[in-house]
Amino acid sequence: MQARKGNLMNVRTDVKVLDATLRDGGLCNNFMFTDEFVKELYKANIKSGVDYMEFGYRASKSLFNESDYGKWKFCNEEDIRAIVGDNVSDMKISVMADVGRCDFRTDFIPKEESVIDMVRVACYIHQMPAALEMIEYFHDLGYETTCNIMAISQASSNQIDEALAMLASSSVDVIYLVDSYGSLFPENASELAKLYLAAAEKAGKQVGFHGHNNQNLAFANTIETLSYGVSYLDATAFAMGRGAGNCAMELLLGFLKNPKYNLYGVLTFIEKYMLPLREQGVVWGYDLQYMLTGQLNRHPREAMDFTAQKRSDYCEFYKGLLDNF
Amino acid sequence: MQARKGNLMNVRTDVKVLDATLRDGGLCNNFMFTDEFVKELYKANIKSGVDYMEFGYRASKSLFNESDYGKWKFCNEEDIRAIVGDNVSDMKISVMADVGRCDFRTDFIPKEESVIDMVRVACYIHQMPAALEMIEYFHDLGYETTCNIMAISQASSNQIDEALAMLASSSVDVIYLVDSYGSLFPENASELAKLYLAAAEKAGKQVGFHGHNNQNLAFANTIETLSYGVSYLDATAFAMGRGAGNCAMELLLGFLKNPKYNLYGVLTFIEKYMLPLREQGVVWGYDLQYMLTGQLNRHPREAMDFTAQKRSDYCEFYKGLLDNF
Repeated sequence: MQARKGNLMNVRTDVKVLDATLRDGGLCNNFMFTDEFVKELYKANIKSGVDYMEFGYRASKSLFNESDYGKWKFCNEEDIRAIVGDNVSDMKISVMADVGRCDFRTDFIPKEESVIDMVRVACYIHQMPAALEMIEYFHDLGYETTCNIMAISQASSNQIDEALAMLASSSVDVIYLVDSYGSLFPENASELAKLYLAAAEKAGKQVGFHGHNNQNLAFANTIETLSYGVSYLDATAFAMGRGAGNCAMELLLGFLKNPKYNLYGVLTFIEKYMLPLREQGVVWGYDLQYMLTGQLNRHPREAMDFTAQKRSDYCEFYKGLLDNF
Repeated sequence: MQARKGNLMNVRTDVKVLDATLRDGGLCNNFMFTDEFVKELYKANIKSGVDYMEFGYRASKSLFNESDYGKWKFCNEEDIRAIVGDNVSDMKISVMADVGRCDFRTDFIPKEESVIDMVRVACYIHQMPAALEMIEYFHDLGYETTCNIMAISQASSNQIDEALAMLASSSVDVIYLVDSYGSLFPENASELAKLYLAAAEKAGKQVGFHGHNNQNLAFANTIETLSYGVSYLDATAFAMGRGAGNCAMELLLGFLKNPKYNLYGVLTFIEKYMLPLREQGVVWGYDLQYMLTGQLNRHPREAMDFTAQKRSDYCEFYKGLLDNF
């Protein structure tokens, strides 16, 4: 099947780096970022050559109370514009829309009136028909679209084949491989990526990867799938993201050879804004409870509870996981 | 060249897991481990199915003051025996001997009188003749031997070819690929591993891997090189090791499919002994200063100074590294 594309010395011009700090990181602090944080992240991403910045979710206001969350749970058009103006930059802007948690028919305006460039549709594999309906709707509004099939490590091969066939004949631009549980090893991730790439390439689409760091493999899986042709790469500043966190932007930019990418912008941002966030008590990142759910291919919710309770009795936790298999 | 050996479902019976917690971890605390710590680690390793436990260095007492270090810098025969008795277990015992920092002709007794099974000879690539002299000496005493060529990311292809040829015609049992600077990506590590394996297999020898976690790739590189046939795998409890630390034993045992390996023993040890060590202020593990020296393929000494000074001005540190290229 697919061979590696490019090598460790050259530039793959098809690569697009997407910063998901506000969106996946927002899951760690209920999206309560200050405007200063968001503005400086926006500037740092532009300086660093990042291709897309995801501002958050556009979640349903009938399902979620606006007062319970920071504004990036909802990503109102005017809130994004307050940060970016008309976004006079080479960087594009995305938001995520979850199947079943988004009023997509009322909450999106046509692309030509919006500052948003891309809508990423997140779903579980059994929700493909709903995801496709949203994708076609956003596509017709003029947006670039992606489909991010979450928790792929629990899907069967048949489901994956079917989903890829459905997406291949859709209007979606990018199909994302999402390791929600951080349970994929590089060999798994690259095998799945090859399946995605085979389906996508025939249909003129791209493939993306979004990792989680439960087994300290988010960066490794990102560059492994990249090497086979995956081109949309999610990362977050200081690896901020739910549970064990994501692929660190600083690791990814340090790896990519395209001189447009610049590590210094992101380093400056981390030093000035991410370290204080951590000191304020916002918690994310690799730890043994996440390793254990990753090894067992499980949702990290029990590990998140363990973390929230500041527990460190890993053995009890492990026994509990095994009891509830 | 070499294809992958085995797959993600089966057991590779050639695999040997080596616990280097005391040896590489000892670099973080001057080898000042309590006897209780060492005894419990020994028991935990046996429970976990670990194949080799490295107790430390056998360093020269004319070069190093015994009063400046814990006893595992020197690994006196009687100190090991005080922990393990006659080591009535399936687990073997190793010590490391550094070229130029070891009085090997006076400090080693014949294997049949020793509780040690294997001596690992560590060297830089320009020290190969000295390493080979030691290897033959230890081999003649009856020990299993390895050659751990450090800082391989700074060696030239010619040097590596030459060193592998020298080792192939020596009595060494295992040739170790050592990513001292944590600068190898999985693609580099596997390419090097294939070179090592080609040389070793012809000569009936094994290949090992020892990673550092500067770019969060120690575990990824370990399982990537494993997949091509590397069989001696170094790991440490809670990833304790110099600077950014090593491949975590808990990640490795969670990955290996051989039922002889048991994660629970190591988890128990971490909870009871590694967490307190960290709370006492012993510092190791991935952080941006180590990422930066790894990305630049540099010795971590500047990052270790930065850590010791409890600095977090990553940008200044980065500029300093670039100024001294």
